[in-house]
Amino acid sequence: MNVYEARLEKMWNWMANEGIALIMFEDAEGRRDTTIRWLTGLPGDGLLFLSVERKSILMPWDINLAKAYSRADYIIPYNDFDRTPRKGIRGAVEKLKIPKGSKLEIPSVTPYPAFLEFVGDLTDFDIICREKSAAAYSRTLRLIKDPEEISVFRKAADITNTIIDLIEKNVRRGKIKTEADAAMFIEVESRKRGCDGTGFETLAAGQDRSFSIHAFPAWTNAPFAEQGLSILDFGLKYRGYTTDVTLTFVREPSAQQIKIAGLVEKAAKLAIEMTANGTMTRAIAASVDDFFAKSKKRMPHSLGHGLGLDVHEYPFIRNRPDDEWTLAPGMVFTIEPGLYDSVHGGCRLENDILMTENGREILTEARIIHL
Amino acid sequence: MNVYEARLEKMWNWMANEGIALIMFEDAEGRRDTTIRWLTGLPGDGLLFLSVERKSILMPWDINLAKAYSRADYIIPYNDFDRTPRKGIRGAVEKLKIPKGSKLEIPSVTPYPAFLEFVGDLTDFDIICREKSAAAYSRTLRLIKDPEEISVFRKAADITNTIIDLIEKNVRRGKIKTEADAAMFIEVESRKRGCDGTGFETLAAGQDRSFSIHAFPAWTNAPFAEQGLSILDFGLKYRGYTTDVTLTFVREPSAQQIKIAGLVEKAAKLAIEMTANGTMTRAIAASVDDFFAKSKKRMPHSLGHGLGLDVHEYPFIRNRPDDEWTLAPGMVFTIEPGLYDSVHGGCRLENDILMTENGREILTEARIIHL
Repeated sequence: MNVYEARLEKMWNWMANEGIALIMFEDAEGRRDTTIRWLTGLPGDGLLFLSVERKSILMPWDINLAKAYSRADYIIPYNDFDRTPRKGIRGAVEKLKIPKGSKLEIPSVTPYPAFLEFVGDLTDFDIICREKSAAAYSRTLRLIKDPEEISVFRKAADITNTIIDLIEKNVRRGKIKTEADAAMFIEVESRKRGCDGTGFETLAAGQDRSFSIHAFPAWTNAPFAEQGLSILDFGLKYRGYTTDVTLTFVREPSAQQIKIAGLVEKAAKLAIEMTANGTMTRAIAASVDDFFAKSKKRMPHSLGHGLGLDVHEYPFIRNRPDDEWTLAPGMVFTIEPGLYDSVHGGCRLENDILMTENGREILTEARIIHL
Repeated sequence: MNVYEARLEKMWNWMANEGIALIMFEDAEGRRDTTIRWLTGLPGDGLLFLSVERKSILMPWDINLAKAYSRADYIIPYNDFDRTPRKGIRGAVEKLKIPKGSKLEIPSVTPYPAFLEFVGDLTDFDIICREKSAAAYSRTLRLIKDPEEISVFRKAADITNTIIDLIEKNVRRGKIKTEADAAMFIEVESRKRGCDGTGFETLAAGQDRSFSIHAFPAWTNAPFAEQGLSILDFGLKYRGYTTDVTLTFVREPSAQQIKIAGLVEKAAKLAIEMTANGTMTRAIAASVDDFFAKSKKRMPHSLGHGLGLDVHEYPFIRNRPDDEWTLAPGMVFTIEPGLYDSVHGGCRLENDILMTENGREILTEARIIHL
């Protein structure tokens, strides 16, 4: 059984238990869903249907791409259904001879007005749209990476670490002088080493722009790693999976900048030392919030998030009462404390952690670099 | 009255006509909405509330960024509401003293399960969630660019044209030899000329990968512009607005490749010559479909789309019976016929058109380049 078959097997069992005859997944601009890639390999737009009779239909926007990259029982051009989900589901129902009265599940992100249209179109079926959807179930499966995914992450982390070292060396040698230099270095060097690309737009914020969590624009021709605090947040995508790390460069810091960087470094250490199988993620986040609060500081974002085909997956590492994640083997996530000051600038330190049977493994080697 | 005030004025009049007391806009990962940027300048995540009493509340994720870039009557950290839309709207209702029983409009993309939660939370209000939403109204306003936007587009197009010329020159000189060379050249040269960056991930597909509409990965270290058909699709973002052009390079073509490129070039000419104020966009798309059909070819995507703060805006240029757009002064859109063959590769030619009182103005100078 290959990795796709093993994943589909779990989905099919889930469908049988839930009494769902047909599930529709959609990956489209504004409604991205990498579940389709996880189940079939298709990296792009389209619909996927799974029937409880264990058949799959892929309706890709790009039929040539689908034939090159994906597997399904049937691959039918989405154009045959005018690239319209309501026509696609009708086509799938007919092709797979789904009995009338059956439960058809549509994505939980289906907008309320579109939901009403599905219901109006498919009056002879029971349309299900709920938070506890098939995609939500797949996200809980994807929370625990399988061995293939873990080996991909180890490779992605190796390349990330090589590039972190090269960036430090080139900043020290004066070869990376601007935000653009840093961002382009990552783009080029990551591809040379076999990456699909970057996992998200690299955020390179020199000392004048590090005050914001996500600098806007993401990078410019402004100087980087000059006097003060400069942030470099990037991820490398390898066979679909992305790392996510943040370095901060510190040069000739003011007393406030020393304080900010010191607090962030301590917070990262504190958080990582707490990562252990069985620990609740919100306890870790709460500890970091408490730590910062003692210095009258507040972190304006979550402490971390899971990684996978999406850059933000389960588990979330944040202090919300309804966050019920407990660390377990197979989880891959970031720890990324940060503080931001509109005058003195910001500092963030982000690394990626893998939980194994033996506890945490720190995959990446991001650091605060004092120049 | 500045440009933001003029836009808000229209929104407030619309609210009064519709009897809506409060509108919520959300810009978040997976549910991007540039309406917030269009109305306030904020380029990032957050919520925006407008009340019929002509007050605005911005709840940005990044308060430092919001203070630097945006304007609203109140700017309150989204963190004060746990970055939760349902808590944010409750906060806005209280702050603006919205009377009980009033109509509160939430985004039309609100998922059905989330809609039920809003309704359950705000039982003392009338929750409106509909296709003909405030954001939909703003999209019809944004269909016609205002003079400030048009001057931004002219500048963006100038830079795009400069870079098209430089790319051709560097390909001919052998300085751009790989997909990566092409993509990185655009990243660096666009920023040098004042762009915020690229409008979307550059698609550089050398002769071995041009068979797909959107190559995957978007670019690699593979050779570019060698024997066959190579596609380069990119956009430059300038002050938030993006261009979108596609060049095809043809070198030592086979008879089939000559045919494909010739058909695409003729289709582009045919389509552009049809662009005139008062023409329906679907008539143009239908003509191109007919033209290709005569050669037994089918274009697997739309003929074009509007441009703006989003890379895909109204009007859509495609042949669907319910597409009712008629070209009018102030519209900016692409014309981008393409054909793709799994063996011979693909060809696309995409340029950006502005409609003025005097008819079409072809803003960009993309072309099929025979090497």
